[in-house]
Amino acid sequence: MSTGVQRTLWLDDRGRLLTRDQTRLPFEEAIVELGDAQACAHAIRTMQVRGAPLIGAVAAYGLAFALRDDASDAGLARARELLLATRPTAVNLRWALDRVAGRVRPLGPPARPGAALDEAAAICDADVACNRAIGEHGAALLRPLRRGDSPLQLLTHCNAGRIATVAWGTALAAVYLLAEAGVPVHVWVDETRPRNQGASLTAWELADRGIAHTVIADNAAGLLMRQGRVDAVIVGCDRVAANGDVANKVGTYQKALAAADNRLPFYVACPVSTIDAGTPDADAIEIEARDPRELTHVRGRGPHGDLVEVQLVPERSPAFNPAFDLTPARLVTALVTEHGAVPASAQGVALALSRASAGPATRGGGPGLSQGAR
Amino acid sequence: MSTGVQRTLWLDDRGRLLTRDQTRLPFEEAIVELGDAQACAHAIRTMQVRGAPLIGAVAAYGLAFALRDDASDAGLARARELLLATRPTAVNLRWALDRVAGRVRPLGPPARPGAALDEAAAICDADVACNRAIGEHGAALLRPLRRGDSPLQLLTHCNAGRIATVAWGTALAAVYLLAEAGVPVHVWVDETRPRNQGASLTAWELADRGIAHTVIADNAAGLLMRQGRVDAVIVGCDRVAANGDVANKVGTYQKALAAADNRLPFYVACPVSTIDAGTPDADAIEIEARDPRELTHVRGRGPHGDLVEVQLVPERSPAFNPAFDLTPARLVTALVTEHGAVPASAQGVALALSRASAGPATRGGGPGLSQGAR
Repeated sequence: MSTGVQRTLWLDDRGRLLTRDQTRLPFEEAIVELGDAQACAHAIRTMQVRGAPLIGAVAAYGLAFALRDDASDAGLARARELLLATRPTAVNLRWALDRVAGRVRPLGPPARPGAALDEAAAICDADVACNRAIGEHGAALLRPLRRGDSPLQLLTHCNAGRIATVAWGTALAAVYLLAEAGVPVHVWVDETRPRNQGASLTAWELADRGIAHTVIADNAAGLLMRQGRVDAVIVGCDRVAANGDVANKVGTYQKALAAADNRLPFYVACPVSTIDAGTPDADAIEIEARDPRELTHVRGRGPHGDLVEVQLVPERSPAFNPAFDLTPARLVTALVTEHGAVPASAQGVALALSRASAGPATRGGGPGLSQGAR
Repeated sequence: MSTGVQRTLWLDDRGRLLTRDQTRLPFEEAIVELGDAQACAHAIRTMQVRGAPLIGAVAAYGLAFALRDDASDAGLARARELLLATRPTAVNLRWALDRVAGRVRPLGPPARPGAALDEAAAICDADVACNRAIGEHGAALLRPLRRGDSPLQLLTHCNAGRIATVAWGTALAAVYLLAEAGVPVHVWVDETRPRNQGASLTAWELADRGIAHTVIADNAAGLLMRQGRVDAVIVGCDRVAANGDVANKVGTYQKALAAADNRLPFYVACPVSTIDAGTPDADAIEIEARDPRELTHVRGRGPHGDLVEVQLVPERSPAFNPAFDLTPARLVTALVTEHGAVPASAQGVALALSRASAGPATRGGGPGLSQGAR
């Protein structure tokens, strides 16, 4: 079995959804059992599950579970509201709920629970196929960058890995596929302040699969690139504008600048679902400011093995915590979609969207940037 | 009395050197008493004192204290070795020790302790004068960048503040002088992972003097510049090469790239003593890799008010912790020395060195870049 196919979400023999509690990683590998819509909503709200695709999948199952108890129109509407309210700005969450609701609404109540479960499973399968395709296109671009007998040296920011998705991840899908193909690969993992998703989640999932990696401070990435110790950067994205500008975890822009200054490829793994054709460019994207406490306090394993939160910044110093930043398209070497890699430009974005509307994800065989690099 | 003149180091009535334990800041304002060379060496080694000028001053006093016990040539050599070994790559440490040793070596042993104390005091006085001059040149460059009635928006990295020096600081000297002159100023303070000198030391010293500031993740600096919320960046430096390349706290290079991409001035406060004319360029500078534990663990105030260290990165994920990075001269708007601002170039560095050899620090009246901006 390929290493990537092991899923982040699975159903047990009683039909409950199981997943790891990501708020306990990397130090505790606790499984949470989600048996009803309330539990799914709680898991999303408290970030036991995070990452747009994973949130969407859990919400889809949550809606299906709710229909087992009450498959009426009113029950459907109530459950949809409950789940939607957990992360109101998550585009993928709304999309997944609408997809399940759209599937079951035409049916009679007795047929709804089964159809909803089928639809949730289809959403998961589609995510796995999409990510694997992104991984194959990404791997085709990255593989030729390896120098001699040295491992391919990649750098990533935040967690665009398998535990943000149902399987494979987006940016890290290429890493898993390269490793599976026997290509020696080493990943420099940005800590990713302030929430430390790199140091905790990316490091955990790479260690879990035995992929060589090293955690660095976000500040060290530029130096490593200057020193010739990085062959390429690959990151995920939260939203891509119509002109190819990218919104992603705060700090992405600085890595893109460092990559450009050192003439290194900077790839953005980009499911077509994250392209927002209604947003002309980065300047139209509003940046969410999150609780400053995410920066002023940090949680880790304390001296007695338990999780402890400590304060880093004293009360009389205010803090500001923007969650995302904006990377102009000119700094992005390519957007790696499930329909192939395309230039980060209005033309490239249009090409990806037209391929997406033409058919299912291609696995590296399609035209475009990835062709020449295979 | 001007706010900057309060010193970071002072002598008590028993001739002991007193300073704040910077490993306890920002949550505890503990004073350490340094009464002999061993205590001075310990304070430097454990980073109770840090910052090149402050380390040099403490080492100078340490050597003077050692001569009280043993003023022989052998005693001098032993104490010099002890102190030099605490931070072997610190240029300023070596310089201060050589200055004291050079002063006392021609003297007979009985005259040595007093002369060494005088020399240590002279080193401190020179640091204060140097930093004030850097501050005046820096303030002259920064003041015109203020837009309308808004506060002048500066961004700094790490701590090049008064507690890294005997007084004033280097990068922050300009901030203190502007504030003293009534110019509204606000400082964005990079957290500065992995040792968090921004979030702890810079935030502490600005709060202590009532200067408006906001702590941000290192990752957020680029976004703020893109959003037009920064007027200029000013940082310190650890070493400047003959061509104007700068070695400074890791992460400086990424801020310089972001400043350049947003056409913002990037100033490096640079005492002439940090210019290393024997180093042709950044590529000749070796980067110190420090204990990965500085990255994998973090210390802060725990739930019960005591300082607690928590682990962020699990054991099976290795970490790499370079202390400095290299910023090419092309990204530096000017080197702000105590002899005026000069271009970051071979010509600029040569100009600063020739002014330094010609006479004492100028206070903003000299020729060069700062003249036009006053």
